[in-house]
Amino acid sequence: MSFINLDRISFNPLLPEVKQVMIDAINSDMHNPSSQHKAGEQAAEKLAGARQQVADLVNAGNPKEIVFTSGGTESVNHAVKGAALANREKGGHIVTTNIEHNAVLRSLKRLSAQGFKVTSLSVDGSGRIDPKAVEDAITDNTILVSVMHSNNETGTIQPIEEIGAVTRRKKVLFHCDAVDSVGVVPMDVDRLNVDLLSFASNPFSGPTGVGGLYIRRGTRIFPLLEGGVQENNKRGGTENLIGILGMAKAAELAMQHMDERGQQTQALKDYLVKKLPEYIDEYIINTDLDHSLPNLLNISLKYIEGESVMLMLDEDDLAVSTKSACATGSLRASHVLLSLGLSHADAQGTLVVSWGSDHTRQDIDKFLDSLAGVVKTLRSMSPLYQKA
Amino acid sequence: MSFINLDRISFNPLLPEVKQVMIDAINSDMHNPSSQHKAGEQAAEKLAGARQQVADLVNAGNPKEIVFTSGGTESVNHAVKGAALANREKGGHIVTTNIEHNAVLRSLKRLSAQGFKVTSLSVDGSGRIDPKAVEDAITDNTILVSVMHSNNETGTIQPIEEIGAVTRRKKVLFHCDAVDSVGVVPMDVDRLNVDLLSFASNPFSGPTGVGGLYIRRGTRIFPLLEGGVQENNKRGGTENLIGILGMAKAAELAMQHMDERGQQTQALKDYLVKKLPEYIDEYIINTDLDHSLPNLLNISLKYIEGESVMLMLDEDDLAVSTKSACATGSLRASHVLLSLGLSHADAQGTLVVSWGSDHTRQDIDKFLDSLAGVVKTLRSMSPLYQKA
Repeated sequence: MSFINLDRISFNPLLPEVKQVMIDAINSDMHNPSSQHKAGEQAAEKLAGARQQVADLVNAGNPKEIVFTSGGTESVNHAVKGAALANREKGGHIVTTNIEHNAVLRSLKRLSAQGFKVTSLSVDGSGRIDPKAVEDAITDNTILVSVMHSNNETGTIQPIEEIGAVTRRKKVLFHCDAVDSVGVVPMDVDRLNVDLLSFASNPFSGPTGVGGLYIRRGTRIFPLLEGGVQENNKRGGTENLIGILGMAKAAELAMQHMDERGQQTQALKDYLVKKLPEYIDEYIINTDLDHSLPNLLNISLKYIEGESVMLMLDEDDLAVSTKSACATGSLRASHVLLSLGLSHADAQGTLVVSWGSDHTRQDIDKFLDSLAGVVKTLRSMSPLYQKA
Repeated sequence: MSFINLDRISFNPLLPEVKQVMIDAINSDMHNPSSQHKAGEQAAEKLAGARQQVADLVNAGNPKEIVFTSGGTESVNHAVKGAALANREKGGHIVTTNIEHNAVLRSLKRLSAQGFKVTSLSVDGSGRIDPKAVEDAITDNTILVSVMHSNNETGTIQPIEEIGAVTRRKKVLFHCDAVDSVGVVPMDVDRLNVDLLSFASNPFSGPTGVGGLYIRRGTRIFPLLEGGVQENNKRGGTENLIGILGMAKAAELAMQHMDERGQQTQALKDYLVKKLPEYIDEYIINTDLDHSLPNLLNISLKYIEGESVMLMLDEDDLAVSTKSACATGSLRASHVLLSLGLSHADAQGTLVVSWGSDHTRQDIDKFLDSLAGVVKTLRSMSPLYQKA
């Protein structure tokens, strides 16, 4: 039986074209793009081409608005801490939501310890923020609003365009953590009215360890990695050119195939949602099906533990996850699911299932089949289930 | 005529074995090491093996003391800012030198703006710091000393072991920026008495965009990239496993071949120093020949501009640099050379020549031959030279 990776939110295999670009880059011994001799200039040209590709993916008007980073976490830390510290004299208030990724939450916690005030807005039962709540939370001291595009556990997409209209009107900087959305759904920094947009390469099948930060021209922000003059003086350090070229190729392919991939993954999602009740009962879908990524579904299975389900599915060569891979090792229930109003018990029974356009209905069938068996076994041993 | 890269301080080509490891990693679709299913565990095992290899390279007692980063700049920013902010309540004073890399200097400038006090020590004419000066600079408020191991422009090595003895006695944290030394000369964090050691992979022919930070167990330090629980909760973000495995292979090879590489590169340095007067006159060697890396020489050519020399050598398919690649685009004279007591004019006439153990005497001969012609041409047009 072959391995089926339905944990794509943790890792997407590189596309063959991306692999080839990276292998060619490895074999070509490209020099340091900052060096001023011919070898350096050749590398700099490659880097410039990659920057244009990635700028196109988020519809940045100027490729200089893209800073290459080591991934989504660096992008988010750079955006949140860099914008907060650079605009401190305008006021120390930041507005966010209580379902953000830990990269945002922990960055804000660090800033709080330094005297910044943070207002964390609650989501409604469907997992979404009301743009009006953002508007109401903004005060004269607000310097930054940070709201994620799609949630990494539920896939639910926020009304970013509406929030962007608010922040633009209120003249407050707007950072959007779009790590799980860029390259998966269409992205346009102008339409969304964002000033800062964080993203990573792996969600659209580029390499891990590479990401991008869109910084709208004129945005006041400090670097996070200070040193050399690389990345238009916004991020020091010799570039990971092999990774960046892989990311750029993945960006090019994502743009070419976004609609087709979106339709294919959405069809699998529709199929999974429709088929689920034929296989299991007593579950909750935590994803807002009207506003969410096409490639992810978050399901809470009542009376049992998600971790046990995950491990038993693993025995059947099916990979899924129970929460963000970034939160591995933590025994606490997901802060995202608790924010949705789930009980601790239901939150502990959660599976995050995610797929790509290369998956098939047969893969979903296989998953459902295994899941039904696992759920039955675990519930037969569950005192909670017996009681209910 | 084939290209001769004597700008190894800016970029070292990957070794064939390193390329192969990275290509194998690309082709193997390794999952996210934080995932708890089998696919994740396999990736986590690979990561653990790499961490041990890199720990061995700096003689870290425990592989958990190694944090993988996106390169030297991130390591330095993490060490300096993370240690300063985490120990602020003990006092806000930091001791450093005026020849550090911009990653250290700019991090400290940022901290100064936040209220930290920085004492920057001067080097002597040979480019070295007196450990006694460090001792004298430490006050009751000193929380951190940051001194680089070797300078990236001159290759001069500091008396780190002696400084480490001082900081240990004074119970002050000691960070050493060893980016251009680790993997090139033997490194032992215990012998040096350092608490934090920053390094990168490319100086020992691993990929760019990957580095390491040694954090001695028990050292109080904040993360720079906050988010997930990766890297023992010291650095969030999905790991760049392809790059890390390349770095680990390069570390393994560096340990195996360090003596041999050291002898080969030192022999080329001795040869270059000996031959130089046969080809040019009126130059200054800015490298302390008794205490320096074996693979780099910094030469100031009087009356002419290093940048013109570099560009003309480039026409002869010879790559050298004039200063740190990280400082490209800046017209200012190197702060390192001015600290050595050089005039602005002499500092502007500087070449940084660097090589690997794969270079030959013929490469050095070719360089000297081209250099002699270039220097003659430029001096014939130099008003300064005519005047002198």
